[in-house]
Amino acid sequence: MYSSNFQPEASLRWKRVQSVLQSINADAVLLNTNANLYYSSGRIFNGYTYIPSEGEAIYFVRRPIGLKGENVHYIHKPEQIPALLTEIGLPLPRKLAIEWDASHGDFTRLCAVFPDAEITNGSAVMRKVRSVKTDYELGLLHESAVKHAEVYHRIESVYHNGMTDIELQIEIERLLRLHGNLGLFRINGQSMEIFMGNVICGDNADTPTPYDFAMGGAGLSCSIPVGCNGSLIRPGMAVMVDMCGNFTGYMTDMTRVYSVGELPDLAHRAHQCSIDIHRAVSQMGKPSVKAADLYNLAISIAKEAGLENYFMGHTQKAGFIGHGVGIEVNEAPVLAPRSKDILEGNQVIALEPKFVIPHVGAVGIEDTYMVTPEGMKAITNAPVEIVSLS
Amino acid sequence: MYSSNFQPEASLRWKRVQSVLQSINADAVLLNTNANLYYSSGRIFNGYTYIPSEGEAIYFVRRPIGLKGENVHYIHKPEQIPALLTEIGLPLPRKLAIEWDASHGDFTRLCAVFPDAEITNGSAVMRKVRSVKTDYELGLLHESAVKHAEVYHRIESVYHNGMTDIELQIEIERLLRLHGNLGLFRINGQSMEIFMGNVICGDNADTPTPYDFAMGGAGLSCSIPVGCNGSLIRPGMAVMVDMCGNFTGYMTDMTRVYSVGELPDLAHRAHQCSIDIHRAVSQMGKPSVKAADLYNLAISIAKEAGLENYFMGHTQKAGFIGHGVGIEVNEAPVLAPRSKDILEGNQVIALEPKFVIPHVGAVGIEDTYMVTPEGMKAITNAPVEIVSLS
Repeated sequence: MYSSNFQPEASLRWKRVQSVLQSINADAVLLNTNANLYYSSGRIFNGYTYIPSEGEAIYFVRRPIGLKGENVHYIHKPEQIPALLTEIGLPLPRKLAIEWDASHGDFTRLCAVFPDAEITNGSAVMRKVRSVKTDYELGLLHESAVKHAEVYHRIESVYHNGMTDIELQIEIERLLRLHGNLGLFRINGQSMEIFMGNVICGDNADTPTPYDFAMGGAGLSCSIPVGCNGSLIRPGMAVMVDMCGNFTGYMTDMTRVYSVGELPDLAHRAHQCSIDIHRAVSQMGKPSVKAADLYNLAISIAKEAGLENYFMGHTQKAGFIGHGVGIEVNEAPVLAPRSKDILEGNQVIALEPKFVIPHVGAVGIEDTYMVTPEGMKAITNAPVEIVSLS
Repeated sequence: MYSSNFQPEASLRWKRVQSVLQSINADAVLLNTNANLYYSSGRIFNGYTYIPSEGEAIYFVRRPIGLKGENVHYIHKPEQIPALLTEIGLPLPRKLAIEWDASHGDFTRLCAVFPDAEITNGSAVMRKVRSVKTDYELGLLHESAVKHAEVYHRIESVYHNGMTDIELQIEIERLLRLHGNLGLFRINGQSMEIFMGNVICGDNADTPTPYDFAMGGAGLSCSIPVGCNGSLIRPGMAVMVDMCGNFTGYMTDMTRVYSVGELPDLAHRAHQCSIDIHRAVSQMGKPSVKAADLYNLAISIAKEAGLENYFMGHTQKAGFIGHGVGIEVNEAPVLAPRSKDILEGNQVIALEPKFVIPHVGAVGIEDTYMVTPEGMKAITNAPVEIVSLS
């Protein structure tokens, strides 16, 4: 299933899952979404991971053929799982966690496979477990972060006068791919879709989107109305670059701002306010701190600077200033006013206090941090100032 | 909600949905996945489309702000829908179709909004409706097809000696984007993930993947194990290019093969067999023909040519030779041995009889067709021969 040097990591992850299962008196979790199959095995396969509340995980695999390992069992359909568990010597679960984030069709089928089990929400179990990263995962996030920053350093080199936002984005996409970006932007839930990220400039930043991203943009098509819209990048515009950092299966999130010509003072003040919010929130962001308190701190700083009207959007506002990130870009915790999340050590959080200045564009930075007892430490490291392209 | 010139198209689509709803005695369908929101309104929004079995569709919108139109109602949460229906003067549905392809969480929430309704599978309704394209949709598919073919014509111009498969793919991705490709590869279901498509060469074509795509490849990471793996493109290798044609929100699917140096006779014979299968299947593929019969025809031609061992994969085989395509890449009908689908006029089908030749790579072509009374007519048009890159 995986190489032998991944075995200790796999065991560590099962144990974390088991600790949560035991706390809700569940006997097992049965996973079938790609993000959780990847988490539980270190690779994507077509099938199911069964993690009992004690002992080793069992992998029921449909495809690809040829996976080897002690706990790998090939199946054609999930209805074979109960008999195989019995054969292995495991009792059938009385209380079983199944992923609510899977399709209703898949969920219903798995429920029918275990007709006598009480069913509970496996997505909630995994969301909790995955929000705190292992050292191995932090290593992959750091690796993504280094490459992410390397690409951002080169953005100036691909810009030329007279470019449109989409032309610049295409060159950044190519840089990302040449540096090893896998392209895929994993997002939990089906309502959010985006290609590799966003480059938005000028008034397009103020166009509302249907998606729950921090920034807007009309997009190039009604079929994916977000991000660049073909605007010519002109003097006086801020160009916000928020592209996906998936170099390792673990994604970093990072935003920097570029300018052409002079930006008005308001844009510079708002950008500085974003930097100030980063400093304050990252100092306060320690284990046991409420995520909602970090949101409120950010809002209060924006208000005090008289910039509330532009904070987290202007025509339409985003309802959060940061979010967990890892295998997916929208993990726990969420830094939002009604969030119930409490920070824990080794959570990884993308913080994105941004401002939309009408007729100028979006300013502010985003960095990905890990939570430590000393506060949030940035893992994406690059200069924070607005970079002049002209 | 949409421009006035889309109004007749929207009405036509509702009527198609209503015809299926009436056939199963359902009073309405409530849609919430992006693909079906796009189909029912011509744009992506965050919210719900409610289509009663008679009359006009109602759009319940959460985001973006500012959408206008007679049947647009802003809501904060789906629990507001029943009261709004009553206010509009519509009866609450006794039998309601909800999408089984939505997450179990979303499905369960919508069921609770209509506690007295009998619930049926809305995904099946929409799959049936969307398999037959309107003239408007065919126009968008043709537009995608023309651009798709234009890019393939330019592939030779971005190849240079000593490239790896991923380096070539990155240049093709850039060409696609510069020609207006939106990037997004919409696939129904969460178990299939891919970036913009596949470039596979040499033995990598014979590496099994977990995904239900026709072709394999190890990929660059365990987090997305499909497609190119960094192989150097060397003399004697076939390079299969199967990249996504999403230029309009409607995707065409198209594969061509390139070679470096001489390919063995077996590869040329298999490529010609693929062309022969295209001719035979497209002649037979008329309304009322069984999809399974087309699959069987393809298999019999491959067998007769003595190429069965390589057909649709070698180490691991795909279980189909073609599939419907439109907003998503895996629509109905499916050309597979146990498919119950029957062809209908104006269905759009990607046909991909391919062969994997060990140590050489994958050969064969894929084209997107529309079903007509005279057979399947290709909408992706480009030379079918293997193109020499060296």
